[in-house]
Amino acid sequence: MSPRRVVATGTFDVLHPGHIYYLSESKKLGDELWVIVARDANVKHKPHPIIPEDQRLCMVAALQPVDHAILGDRTDMFRPIEEIQPDVITIGFNQYFDEAKLQKQLKERGLTPKIIRIGKYADGDLASSRLIVQRIVDIRGTEKDRQE
Amino acid sequence: MSPRRVVATGTFDVLHPGHIYYLSESKKLGDELWVIVARDANVKHKPHPIIPEDQRLCMVAALQPVDHAILGDRTDMFRPIEEIQPDVITIGFNQYFDEAKLQKQLKERGLTPKIIRIGKYADGDLASSRLIVQRIVDIRGTEKDRQE
Repeated sequence: MSPRRVVATGTFDVLHPGHIYYLSESKKLGDELWVIVARDANVKHKPHPIIPEDQRLCMVAALQPVDHAILGDRTDMFRPIEEIQPDVITIGFNQYFDEAKLQKQLKERGLTPKIIRIGKYADGDLASSRLIVQRIVDIRGTEKDRQE
Repeated sequence: MSPRRVVATGTFDVLHPGHIYYLSESKKLGDELWVIVARDANVKHKPHPIIPEDQRLCMVAALQPVDHAILGDRTDMFRPIEEIQPDVITIGFNQYFDEAKLQKQLKERGLTPKIIRIGKYADGDLASSRLIVQRIVDIRGTEKDRQE
């Protein structure tokens, strides 16, 4: 029997425990976890990533739940999914995909993976790239101002 | 034969490829990699960490080369090393330990691990917590100013 493949996707800008939770929960749904890391040029729905795409890829590939990490396609988000042929695609709690629409688009490409939304990581950590960036700006931005 | 234990240490504030390199190279020197993550209160030789100690621990524990991650002792940096009884202790390229002095202090506690300094990760990435923090302040600090 071929391994059950799971695909997770995201920007993974400044890594935090919410990413680890999303990827660990995704991995539990199959045998092999493939992660598609968004290209810099394709991140348009939120501020541009701090960390360049190659470095984001390197960091995701170093995480324990991850078996394979690749960069997304520059123009066709479904191409890597066609290559991987996943049994499951997971969506993070804050990823704004319309699941029914996504299912339809995948079906048009002959793909019928199960789409599963992973819940929110509910701990008191700085579990958001945005919160970490904000904390850095608050603490170090002020220190820098004082130095200047 | 008992597993060959390696100890690596550090703050691991905002993770980057230099950390992955240090830990991967450390792991190659033995069978089990133990990482001692510095307590917030014990980071005194550089700016205070952005990420709280429990979250830094969680992130280090999620990295592929790491078998065990623990927080350092609050008052005695040698206590966890006594407990682990490592065969090797690795030092990062930018960690300012005097290796001869460290060897002597360990010997006084009956510990005789090999001390190995890991070289510098030499890629063009943002391979430093300081550089990432600086980039965040430069980019987002300015954006924030514009919004206000």
